[in-house]
Amino acid sequence: MAKRHDQRDPSQLREVAVTLDYTEMALASCLIEVGKTRVLCSVSAEDRVPPWLRGKGSGWVTAEYAMLPAATRERTPREAVRGKQGGRTVEIQRLIGRSLRSSVDLKRMGEIELVVDCDVIQADGGTRTASITGASLALRLALARLEKAGRVRAGVITSALAAVSVGIVDGQPVLDLDYPEDSSAEVDMNVVMNQKGEYVEIQGTAEGAPFSKVQLVDLLKLAESGIGQLLSLGDQILAEHAQ
Amino acid sequence: MAKRHDQRDPSQLREVAVTLDYTEMALASCLIEVGKTRVLCSVSAEDRVPPWLRGKGSGWVTAEYAMLPAATRERTPREAVRGKQGGRTVEIQRLIGRSLRSSVDLKRMGEIELVVDCDVIQADGGTRTASITGASLALRLALARLEKAGRVRAGVITSALAAVSVGIVDGQPVLDLDYPEDSSAEVDMNVVMNQKGEYVEIQGTAEGAPFSKVQLVDLLKLAESGIGQLLSLGDQILAEHAQ
Amino acid sequence: MAKRHDQRDPSQLREVAVTLDYTEMALASCLIEVGKTRVLCSVSAEDRVPPWLRGKGSGWVTAEYAMLPAATRERTPREAVRGKQGGRTVEIQRLIGRSLRSSVDLKRMGEIELVVDCDVIQADGGTRTASITGASLALRLALARLEKAGRVRAGVITSALAAVSVGIVDGQPVLDLDYPEDSSAEVDMNVVMNQKGEYVEIQGTAEGAPFSKVQLVDLLKLAESGIGQLLSLGDQILAEHAQ
Amino acid sequence: MAKRHDQRDPSQLREVAVTLDYTEMALASCLIEVGKTRVLCSVSAEDRVPPWLRGKGSGWVTAEYAMLPAATRERTPREAVRGKQGGRTVEIQRLIGRSLRSSVDLKRMGEIELVVDCDVIQADGGTRTASITGASLALRLALARLEKAGRVRAGVITSALAAVSVGIVDGQPVLDLDYPEDSSAEVDMNVVMNQKGEYVEIQGTAEGAPFSKVQLVDLLKLAESGIGQLLSLGDQILAEHAQ
Amino acid sequence: MAKRHDQRDPSQLREVAVTLDYTEMALASCLIEVGKTRVLCSVSAEDRVPPWLRGKGSGWVTAEYAMLPAATRERTPREAVRGKQGGRTVEIQRLIGRSLRSSVDLKRMGEIELVVDCDVIQADGGTRTASITGASLALRLALARLEKAGRVRAGVITSALAAVSVGIVDGQPVLDLDYPEDSSAEVDMNVVMNQKGEYVEIQGTAEGAPFSKVQLVDLLKLAESGIGQLLSLGDQILAEHAQ
Amino acid sequence: MAKRHDQRDPSQLREVAVTLDYTEMALASCLIEVGKTRVLCSVSAEDRVPPWLRGKGSGWVTAEYAMLPAATRERTPREAVRGKQGGRTVEIQRLIGRSLRSSVDLKRMGEIELVVDCDVIQADGGTRTASITGASLALRLALARLEKAGRVRAGVITSALAAVSVGIVDGQPVLDLDYPEDSSAEVDMNVVMNQKGEYVEIQGTAEGAPFSKVQLVDLLKLAESGIGQLLSLGDQILAEHAQ
Repeated sequence: MAKRHDQRDPSQLREVAVTLDYTEMALASCLIEVGKTRVLCSVSAEDRVPPWLRGKGSGWVTAEYAMLPAATRERTPREAVRGKQGGRTVEIQRLIGRSLRSSVDLKRMGEIELVVDCDVIQADGGTRTASITGASLALRLALARLEKAGRVRAGVITSALAAVSVGIVDGQPVLDLDYPEDSSAEVDMNVVMNQKGEYVEIQGTAEGAPFSKVQLVDLLKLAESGIGQLLSLGDQILAEHAQ
Repeated sequence: MAKRHDQRDPSQLREVAVTLDYTEMALASCLIEVGKTRVLCSVSAEDRVPPWLRGKGSGWVTAEYAMLPAATRERTPREAVRGKQGGRTVEIQRLIGRSLRSSVDLKRMGEIELVVDCDVIQADGGTRTASITGASLALRLALARLEKAGRVRAGVITSALAAVSVGIVDGQPVLDLDYPEDSSAEVDMNVVMNQKGEYVEIQGTAEGAPFSKVQLVDLLKLAESGIGQLLSLGDQILAEHAQ
Repeated sequence: MAKRHDQRDPSQLREVAVTLDYTEMALASCLIEVGKTRVLCSVSAEDRVPPWLRGKGSGWVTAEYAMLPAATRERTPREAVRGKQGGRTVEIQRLIGRSLRSSVDLKRMGEIELVVDCDVIQADGGTRTASITGASLALRLALARLEKAGRVRAGVITSALAAVSVGIVDGQPVLDLDYPEDSSAEVDMNVVMNQKGEYVEIQGTAEGAPFSKVQLVDLLKLAESGIGQLLSLGDQILAEHAQ
Repeated sequence: MAKRHDQRDPSQLREVAVTLDYTEMALASCLIEVGKTRVLCSVSAEDRVPPWLRGKGSGWVTAEYAMLPAATRERTPREAVRGKQGGRTVEIQRLIGRSLRSSVDLKRMGEIELVVDCDVIQADGGTRTASITGASLALRLALARLEKAGRVRAGVITSALAAVSVGIVDGQPVLDLDYPEDSSAEVDMNVVMNQKGEYVEIQGTAEGAPFSKVQLVDLLKLAESGIGQLLSLGDQILAEHAQ
Repeated sequence: MAKRHDQRDPSQLREVAVTLDYTEMALASCLIEVGKTRVLCSVSAEDRVPPWLRGKGSGWVTAEYAMLPAATRERTPREAVRGKQGGRTVEIQRLIGRSLRSSVDLKRMGEIELVVDCDVIQADGGTRTASITGASLALRLALARLEKAGRVRAGVITSALAAVSVGIVDGQPVLDLDYPEDSSAEVDMNVVMNQKGEYVEIQGTAEGAPFSKVQLVDLLKLAESGIGQLLSLGDQILAEHAQ
Repeated sequence: MAKRHDQRDPSQLREVAVTLDYTEMALASCLIEVGKTRVLCSVSAEDRVPPWLRGKGSGWVTAEYAMLPAATRERTPREAVRGKQGGRTVEIQRLIGRSLRSSVDLKRMGEIELVVDCDVIQADGGTRTASITGASLALRLALARLEKAGRVRAGVITSALAAVSVGIVDGQPVLDLDYPEDSSAEVDMNVVMNQKGEYVEIQGTAEGAPFSKVQLVDLLKLAESGIGQLLSLGDQILAEHAQ
């Protein structure tokens, strides 16, 4: 079992830090740092829901994702300048939104829409999974506030979520890939799970080389272990913040 | 084990029909019908590759996906009129392209780009997996022709591909969901595999209700069985067509 | 009187085939094949009319036109990817819409909008005239259904329509140009007529060489003869289908 | 034969005025006034041709058309604000460009592109035909200058062009419709002819009511007479200006 | 004190001409010519205000600015073709709109929106200041008409406006720069003032070389003198026109 | 002299904090905090310059500006989703770019383009002036690094820059407006100055009420004092960072 290029064990997460309420204009925000990857997740509430939900008493949760142009080693052109969101962006924000919706009971929200902005300040691999983990924390904080303010009923949050990437790098299954690993991985898989140990999303991609059933099992185990650690950390930070 | 709304067994595919060379302007084309879902997959060759590959001797395979406006029960607005491809479209065509690239040796292609257009003539669930299955067949036919014409080396195709959707409907794992099932599924998973029984893509989504490890195993088994049948059928049809 | 490159007489149509209800999600559809040109025309009904007609009790008929990227000998870039419909597309769909509206009594429709999608599956010249001929048949079928269902009054259709192209190729007036003829024509004219022998649209263009009054008369005669055949064929197919 | 709403005879043009070199930044310009319709036509030269003509020694002529927002009775939203040219605009500028190209020998131009901007300062019907008549004059002036400067060979202009609209209003064929007539016409036809009495474009549209062969003949006669007057006027003005 | 390239004194305006009601479809229009710069300013009224003002009884004034492609020495690509307004355009029309709003009492207008289109027919420097001066005149004329028609209360106009550019060219402060001066200016400043001698906008830019407080004072004096002349001229022309 | 709503004196800046190299992917970055306003300024280098500078040996400096959606009290829609940058954004980034270019000798740079991204993390008034002050610091740090690496000559920076807003609030001239002040200001002015006490940009706007010459003098004095403090602070922070 070889050490990785940054001396981590294959089953080791990068260092994770979470700052709740990093900014104060939003209803709730969370800066999550996973190694050098840094994502600011902010929750805003709007008093209207998308057209297809109007008058049904149900709420909605959606997400938007973007990277600051200078977040990456090579500057990434700004999507607002190019005039549209790229395919990767759209795919990621749909994933974040779907995952978050699996963790709430939309019917208990009333006709409120929560928009979770995930803006990547610095990117070093795993920005979509860091976004989901951070967004789930910010969402929990936001909903606690809305509940306290009497704007939503209790019990909107049905479970906590976290996400990690796993992959096969140089033939070895590893947890939480950074950018250099991600660039050379044979298989890349993002896993979102909840506190009950259930899967919310599994997105495994083998552009490099298809993978076997045995490898799939190994990857899912690694993911479960990493997600467990992230969920514990999140609970602890939310508990301390609430005091 | 209850029958499904269309009398299929949970592990039964819909009827599948494949017409190779349905149109004749493209290098190769394939009309695939899976139940009422009908997708026309056409392969075009271009003598230039994307900028980042120029001068490297390597080829490229990409895909575009679209639905005719009248393919769906409710007419879908035309993306060219709205002025951009929607998020769902972009996500699907990225999936098709990635899958196809996993089945070819780009370095043996030389500097040729193959564009596979997957146009949905009628949509009744499973359009992305039908697209992958059909696109793989059209691609194999196209590459056989290019090889024969001396434009690519032998052995560009490294494996055949097929894809199916599986999901959990009314608590029961089922194979190859049609639109009514897809709309009410708790879990929806698309699986792409190759002839060696390896995974190329797994995209499992639980917007309705997260799923357990046991359910995951069941779904993957169903997918493997369906993909096996599709791969056999494809081989047979290609063999007959070549005569 | 020389034979044409495909052995047709100057006044001879290509082979025409029409399949009504080729797809089943739309209110009515029609696949029209004119030689190798194949267009799928589908009619969808919407319960709202454009803003300027609201509350006036009148209906509307509009058309959209597109070509599948692989419909042409050289792949045509997808308009949704380019982010807008091209000039040729817009011009053609305006022509189709205007022509169809000349054949209905909008006031008898009530506030319903019918959208006719003309999607070119394969293009070998004459796609706009095939679209009009096919769209008129699909529209007649759709309106018969709406009338039967009590959603529109009787008599919405005021006349049947058909269209052909005529042109001057190598100095000789010819009927129903295919792509090779169209590319080298000195004059290209599209004519839309109704069953009463009246003109609905005449669009004659001489990018190659301007044309004389005598040539104009010859072209209009050829068009009238071709349109007569198409109208008879359409009537017969509709009559058989209704049984 | 009834007088028209502005006291003109059915076969009478509105008053026409032409000011050559109305502006001085362009290579040549022409303000054409037909009744209250006023169009500024300006010709600019660029030293490169479109991609498909590069290296072939041939030139190109193209046109762009636009209306100032305040040119119409009801302000028309600015296309640059809406983010794209409308269908009507595209259709018109394609017509102008095609017509102009029919009047020049592109091969004698060398690799120069002439762009003719037709900007409608005030619109009272017939803007597209006024644009063609004015653009042809500006183009002739521009080419005379380029020839004098040795930038193109002699003989690029192969014929003079002019255009008028004709139509059927209250059942009567009339020449040169103004906006009130155009709005209520049963048939609207734009005709472009050259000095040899040949047709360059005929675009007849019957959204109101289809028209018979007899009516077509009447309309074409009216058009020919109007175009003859416009061509004479143009020749005279160019001759005076050259002095 | 050196003469300028066109023989003007440093403190001398170019020749100014104003034609009110140059076009007649708009509510009011004004063609302003400052040297070779020519801008057509047209005012249109709409019976609805922007969303944020609805139901508040207040009106709105906004401006749009554009240049005809052939207005400049080198043809400028049309913004409607490029699909969006450029940064310079947006900046200028925001400036015009803000300035005009400073000169009216929006609350006395009632819920009417006035759109002032400033279309540059020919550009030779100072198009934005000519636009403001001309737009203010057209606006005063339009409001006089609306007041006369009983559509707005008296006293909507609170002051007359005019604008000029000043700058430092070859180290010397000058008034009303033409294009050659503007291109080589070290400092470029646009000043908008009202009849009370107050500032409405000051936009001074030193891309060439930063400027001192002394130079600022000189520039502001020049601007005040030029604006005074423009305001007198405007008053005189409006007075004559009203007769 | 009344205290302001946040207890500041009229001539008092908000608290300012600067963190150099807040992120590490860019060539240099700077997080500037002015009260609650927080802007991340990052400098990226590209080895090609805009087309009009190619082959001239000169460099270029440009800026892009954006606000995170959740930076404001009410969430601001994301420009990449709307498909274009808004007018305010374009105006601000043009101002930042122009200002920065006034502080460098582009000819000493060689053919390098520096892009300065100013991304507003939190907005409480004065984001454009904070952007300029922060961007100037990041640019100085970046150029010091490029000079050290031998990629540009010495002396590219010709002066340090800083910017503040001043305005008239409740009739009183004040320095460094926060959002509540900005929203109710009668006059809003942004001033950019360099270390020599020269003006680089003055942008004064009176949408509320035009301002007199005396008020202009007061505002410019306040601005000069604030800019002096910002320049001292910047010098000190750069000096400490370099150690």
